[in-house]
Amino acid sequence: MSVSIRIVLVNTTHPGNIGGVARAMKNMNFDELHLVAPKKFPHVNADARASGATDLLENAVVHETLEEAIADCQIVVGTSARGRHIPWPVVDPRELASIVGPLSAEKKVAVVFGREDRGLTNEELHLCHYHVHIPSNPDFSSLNLAAAVQVITYELRMADLYAENNEEVKPQWGTDWDIDLADSADLERLFTHMEEALVDIDFLDPENPRQLMPRLRRLYLRALPDKVEVNVLRGILTATQKAQKPKD
Amino acid sequence: MSVSIRIVLVNTTHPGNIGGVARAMKNMNFDELHLVAPKKFPHVNADARASGATDLLENAVVHETLEEAIADCQIVVGTSARGRHIPWPVVDPRELASIVGPLSAEKKVAVVFGREDRGLTNEELHLCHYHVHIPSNPDFSSLNLAAAVQVITYELRMADLYAENNEEVKPQWGTDWDIDLADSADLERLFTHMEEALVDIDFLDPENPRQLMPRLRRLYLRALPDKVEVNVLRGILTATQKAQKPKD
Repeated sequence: MSVSIRIVLVNTTHPGNIGGVARAMKNMNFDELHLVAPKKFPHVNADARASGATDLLENAVVHETLEEAIADCQIVVGTSARGRHIPWPVVDPRELASIVGPLSAEKKVAVVFGREDRGLTNEELHLCHYHVHIPSNPDFSSLNLAAAVQVITYELRMADLYAENNEEVKPQWGTDWDIDLADSADLERLFTHMEEALVDIDFLDPENPRQLMPRLRRLYLRALPDKVEVNVLRGILTATQKAQKPKD
Repeated sequence: MSVSIRIVLVNTTHPGNIGGVARAMKNMNFDELHLVAPKKFPHVNADARASGATDLLENAVVHETLEEAIADCQIVVGTSARGRHIPWPVVDPRELASIVGPLSAEKKVAVVFGREDRGLTNEELHLCHYHVHIPSNPDFSSLNLAAAVQVITYELRMADLYAENNEEVKPQWGTDWDIDLADSADLERLFTHMEEALVDIDFLDPENPRQLMPRLRRLYLRALPDKVEVNVLRGILTATQKAQKPKD
């Protein structure tokens, strides 16, 4: 893979699953494993299930928060079951591979996997540009964590292997971008600033925020803004705040 | 899947893996599990890893020999590492799905998985029409048994789902949006309004507009906004205009 792919596991309960994920990743030739507040790690069960991929476990980076784990990533993809209350761009693993595969080597992509029993929270999902859904049996939809990582990394590897034999595929927005994509930390600063400005101009009621910020996050994340665009948007927010009349 | 697919496990050592296979199969909506001389079955570890797919374990058919397990199948596919001594038709999982997917419902296909430590014997592989190879990392090529079944059944399910939907063109974000996309007139009204508001807050100098509006158009158009999103953005612009202090 030319692009750098980070697998992020959030709050994993069973260390055996972390080992299974490491094995699945190494089988597909990925090696960047990040863990957010795992329940038990390191652990003998992780080593056992890793079955020779213990190097990935030794090099795994442990974080306190998801925000920290994805701060330097330009594209963040969260795994999700169907039917969230606010629709987000959802791709299947093959579509994900077609988006991510053509990106250049400097781009950092994170694919984030949630807890064994209840996945990612809505707040965590709203940090993501895309959601990826493995089209499983609706009556028995929850894959084992390592199995889900296996499917996603398999698709990414297949896209890479198939792309080697093809002409270059263009990124989905159909242009060669001249400027670096914003990373997750840039975008979080933008959304914090946006929320402040919207409160300042009385458009957002902090007592009753409804789904305004998730809707705006979804819109801007979908566009994969670059760093200059984020600066322009923040400039507009600053100008909006400066231009307002003093509160009564 | 119109065609009937049987998963056959040969001489599995760890009953936990049989459970993991059952779960992977049920996740992908397959239910026909056949076991050739499993070391320990039934077993509590199989039930535990099956995690709700115990119906597949209860209905699993146990055979003494592989020949017996595949006797009524028209197409038999054996999973294989690379480089067997005698070349055989080898497909990857996607090619397998493209071969098997279009077959009619009367056809029976078996996909055969070997032992955890050494796969299928040459004699067993020679019972197969095709060999399927998961293109794993050559330096770490052996997948967990349940992970291998997950990849193969995922590909078979994807072929089935894509075949059902190949009429439909999906929007770029791969989901059915709940709201109509904004049309060009909506978007032009948005950009006109945006330009006015940016002049009002002194962010855009009409005497020297530079590339600001083209940059913003490019950003918003890329996201393919829907009608509600355009209304939210226009609401923000109106609130921005209302909140501003009178010009000197």
